Amino acid sequence: MLVNGKQGNLISIRDRGLLYGDGVFRTMRALHGKAQHWPLHYQKLQHDCAALGLDCPDKAMLASELEHLLVQHPEGVVKLIVTRGQQGKEARGYAPPAQTAPSHIWDISTLPDYPADRQVSGIKARLCQLRLGQQPRLAGIKHLNRLENVLAAAESDDAAIAEGLLLDSAGNVIEGIRSNVFLVSHGKLITPDLSRCGVAGVQRDRVIAWAAQHHIPLQVRDVVLPELMDAEEVFVVNSLIALWPVRELEQRRWNDFPVATRIRLYLNGQDDR
Amino acid sequence: MLVNGKQGNLISIRDRGLLYGDGVFRTMRALHGKAQHWPLHYQKLQHDCAALGLDCPDKAMLASELEHLLVQHPEGVVKLIVTRGQQGKEARGYAPPAQTAPSHIWDISTLPDYPADRQVSGIKARLCQLRLGQQPRLAGIKHLNRLENVLAAAESDDAAIAEGLLLDSAGNVIEGIRSNVFLVSHGKLITPDLSRCGVAGVQRDRVIAWAAQHHIPLQVRDVVLPELMDAEEVFVVNSLIALWPVRELEQRRWNDFPVATRIRLYLNGQDDR
Repeated sequence: MLVNGKQGNLISIRDRGLLYGDGVFRTMRALHGKAQHWPLHYQKLQHDCAALGLDCPDKAMLASELEHLLVQHPEGVVKLIVTRGQQGKEARGYAPPAQTAPSHIWDISTLPDYPADRQVSGIKARLCQLRLGQQPRLAGIKHLNRLENVLAAAESDDAAIAEGLLLDSAGNVIEGIRSNVFLVSHGKLITPDLSRCGVAGVQRDRVIAWAAQHHIPLQVRDVVLPELMDAEEVFVVNSLIALWPVRELEQRRWNDFPVATRIRLYLNGQDDR
Repeated sequence: MLVNGKQGNLISIRDRGLLYGDGVFRTMRALHGKAQHWPLHYQKLQHDCAALGLDCPDKAMLASELEHLLVQHPEGVVKLIVTRGQQGKEARGYAPPAQTAPSHIWDISTLPDYPADRQVSGIKARLCQLRLGQQPRLAGIKHLNRLENVLAAAESDDAAIAEGLLLDSAGNVIEGIRSNVFLVSHGKLITPDLSRCGVAGVQRDRVIAWAAQHHIPLQVRDVVLPELMDAEEVFVVNSLIALWPVRELEQRRWNDFPVATRIRLYLNGQDDR
């Protein structure tokens, strides 16, 4: 674990990441000593920092620290947190200090022990009761204000349910608690518009890019629940799981995942660094 | 500064307060060695912890720690943060661990140097561009997901503007960035309903209780901007400023604050412990 370039696992109680969730983060998979899709993750980090008016740490510096960490921990989950840094001694309150020195934190942990067959046989998912609020200013950003995800995850402790799907207050399907969602409907790929809420992940971008490369029609737009339930396939993606087809969602069952399988092979097989 | 009962100013980078903003806080004024309205703040803390499914730290333990802190720091701002504690070594992700050991953090700092005449002559306020999202599950709670407040505060660095007023996405007036708002309209006190967004502060409750005691009609309900602009008086309250009348808001000016003055004298003069 590294905090601002130094070994350690502690941060100031006056860090704005703790005080206000004033920061962003990335979660990556370390595989054979490499952080998968690091350039894409850094692009997202830059984008998300800019959206919050945060200075993004230098790419070369982060890459160098990451490389050192991966020598010691070649496999697992790499988490990178960037916050607006420590609240000034004089400054108090919500307004960002004029001079900010962002904090950056690396943490590596063991990859969760996901059953391997989830990628092939699919998962059981549920619909969350919590509805995401709409906040266009924070939509798409992987920021540290994640209480909605926490409350949604707390709704169920059924170990057989691998993911919860979230709707927003208007009834649109948005995402999984920790994943992005796609559907295959009338032969088209569709993924929800995330301009009012949700987190736009790296794997979502990779699927969108894959579809463009293969001239497969893909729409980014609002999706209501009946459309999801009527879809030929539904699957979720993120950087740790890659892709899980949805086999079961409430009363609905799916048995075949031909499109999801093709995309999964792409997501797993190719390293776009 | 105390972290989980021990002197210190550091917390684990795996604390869920940092990772997800998974916690709540209180801000109190220390005056002559006493934290103003501590019992009311503890009630709010209990309420907010319960809303997040967090174990609230024991009142007697907190009171004892607070008492010790106030001996050394009899004047200033007392901040208390309670988080869901450290993420387990095995557990990862948003779901709260089955066994939680909440963290609690005390921090005392200097009272901001507010011009004294703001209480009497009123302040210049502005309307924030950011609109609060609606999330009934988090509404009213003083939780650590405060990016909306940060972005709203970042909109202006005009030192002459003492507070920004926030509307929600539906156009309702909700609160100040760091205060609750009241208006006097046709002789009635009105304060916005906070069941979809906003933070319900201790001073807001005190004003509501004062009105009940004095048989002054008070409504908690939706307020649209034209009603605020037409009001006879507008004022904001919180635990540090007590009460500031609004003298100027965009193009609107107010000159007299008879009701606000009466309430301010109550808020400042009485200690309800």
